[in-house]
Amino acid sequence: MKSHPNILSEFDLIARHFIRPTPRTALGPGDDAALLAPSSGAQIAVTSDMLISGVHFLPGTDPEKLGWKALAVNLSDLAAMGAQPRWALLACGLSKPDENWLTGFSSGIFSCAQRYGIDLVGGDTTRGPLTLCVTALGEIPAGTALRRDAARLNDDLWISGLPGIAALGLAHRKGEMRLPPEILNACLDRFEKPKPRVELGIALRKNALARAAIDVSDGLLADAEHLAEASKLDIAIDTMLLPECLPEGMPPVSSLTKKFQKARLSGGDDYELLFSAAPERREDIGALGMQLDLPLWRIGRFVEGQGRVTLLGKRGETLPVFHKGYDHFAENIQ
Amino acid sequence: MKSHPNILSEFDLIARHFIRPTPRTALGPGDDAALLAPSSGAQIAVTSDMLISGVHFLPGTDPEKLGWKALAVNLSDLAAMGAQPRWALLACGLSKPDENWLTGFSSGIFSCAQRYGIDLVGGDTTRGPLTLCVTALGEIPAGTALRRDAARLNDDLWISGLPGIAALGLAHRKGEMRLPPEILNACLDRFEKPKPRVELGIALRKNALARAAIDVSDGLLADAEHLAEASKLDIAIDTMLLPECLPEGMPPVSSLTKKFQKARLSGGDDYELLFSAAPERREDIGALGMQLDLPLWRIGRFVEGQGRVTLLGKRGETLPVFHKGYDHFAENIQ
Repeated sequence: MKSHPNILSEFDLIARHFIRPTPRTALGPGDDAALLAPSSGAQIAVTSDMLISGVHFLPGTDPEKLGWKALAVNLSDLAAMGAQPRWALLACGLSKPDENWLTGFSSGIFSCAQRYGIDLVGGDTTRGPLTLCVTALGEIPAGTALRRDAARLNDDLWISGLPGIAALGLAHRKGEMRLPPEILNACLDRFEKPKPRVELGIALRKNALARAAIDVSDGLLADAEHLAEASKLDIAIDTMLLPECLPEGMPPVSSLTKKFQKARLSGGDDYELLFSAAPERREDIGALGMQLDLPLWRIGRFVEGQGRVTLLGKRGETLPVFHKGYDHFAENIQ
Repeated sequence: MKSHPNILSEFDLIARHFIRPTPRTALGPGDDAALLAPSSGAQIAVTSDMLISGVHFLPGTDPEKLGWKALAVNLSDLAAMGAQPRWALLACGLSKPDENWLTGFSSGIFSCAQRYGIDLVGGDTTRGPLTLCVTALGEIPAGTALRRDAARLNDDLWISGLPGIAALGLAHRKGEMRLPPEILNACLDRFEKPKPRVELGIALRKNALARAAIDVSDGLLADAEHLAEASKLDIAIDTMLLPECLPEGMPPVSSLTKKFQKARLSGGDDYELLFSAAPERREDIGALGMQLDLPLWRIGRFVEGQGRVTLLGKRGETLPVFHKGYDHFAENIQ
């Protein structure tokens, strides 16, 4: 690299932006591989997600928020298993090393890592179209994970938070709609800096409150279908039980109604938890929501079937379903 | 997806090409995260590499070889720690779902997985520029990993295989040179379908033959410098000890000499192991090479210093070093 004094080398870049202390790790970044010391009796939950500019995030996205989100979406997968997040790796392609961009991006990813107690233990930095691939690892006592296939007949279906508001934030960013100021920040915040429901997942698993769980990234209906298929049951969602209200400060449902109704059923990027629980646990789940200061909504139940999701209207009639969610090969964020 | 009958959905694609039985895994693909059950007392070695079309591989690369290599380069990192590979995740961006390409690619990655005893436990498939990110995980008894910082003064420096021949294969593929038929296949094979030195790494660790190790991916000199820096010593490489010969069947060193000499010092993509060992272990290491049918070359030693690599000529004189290796932000495979 001495012949290119104006270009930071790959190694300098990694050292400057992506290496911080890793107190929870046997051997952190800088060797051929990191070394993790799992807790005795724990299983390792591991997941990997790729985020590509123009597909998963808008070009020009604020790098700090992007750094947060790149890690957060993986932690959401761990949350859906009920795992305790512990470690992450970041591989990224960068079109050119831009110091300001990297400063913002690393600040975002490390602020998410710190919030959730994660060590960034390694990865890869290379030249290429802006692409992020985060692998997150967590721990979970053997046999206790919240799997997708564990829902039982007559279980309730629950969802956390306010499904759909992230999709409204995206629509606003794309200029497709203008959100009223009362809800703008909440929608943008959920879209751009989602808070993975880690504490919820752990509490649902520890107290055996939930049986099956999934995180909602592709849209409520699409992800409900994954739960239904894995558990070999149908799900009936009662549209009357879906959260009616937008976030705090939201005016009465008005012109937004139709867009919000579509977004809450099929908008992506929610990163809420959708889970099944026995009807006897309703009170405990309500109490947990209060304790976490997180709304938890009972929106349907598991019925006999083979993996379909149906929507019920106000008189219990079946409503038509047009659009289930997001598929990366059919749609584009741009 | 029902409105796009000619486009396979993301989920169909994953199911068809990337899901196979995972007998060594507590919970394989299909949930929010995979669940791994580590062996008692084992540490987890984990590494992640991103491969981008046009940067790490030539556009139009045979998909089967690409699938093999995408996993193999990560196993090479595990080998350099002395870890036993166990699991891998694949995240990939694909410009469009091409059934033939996917069939070849998945055949390549699974054939590498099977050869090295790996379960492919999860990942992500998305639309985007052709990009592969593999995360590989292995196991290693706590405290026994071959770290980069463990070389000691007067240790020998060893390298496996034939450093440089992968770079010759790349130069041939790029049309920069024509290799004689006697060595063409060996060079292309090492470049396109590298065999990670997993058995070597494990044997060096189990028998405490090596102290420090690294895999050579950026070039012998560049990676030797990483070992030297981490171990806070200098390395003196005796150019007279570097392997003189090209692979079996190679004619006497001739017009290739200069290119080969440059390639073996600074060509990337070798995926050989470079390691330090006490001089008392020379015989044992020689015997191990015989047992594995893999040439192992003692090419230098660790001397007092702060992380520099020097080359010694035939009379022990110091030779100039021009080009240390490959840096993704300075060069391009194309």
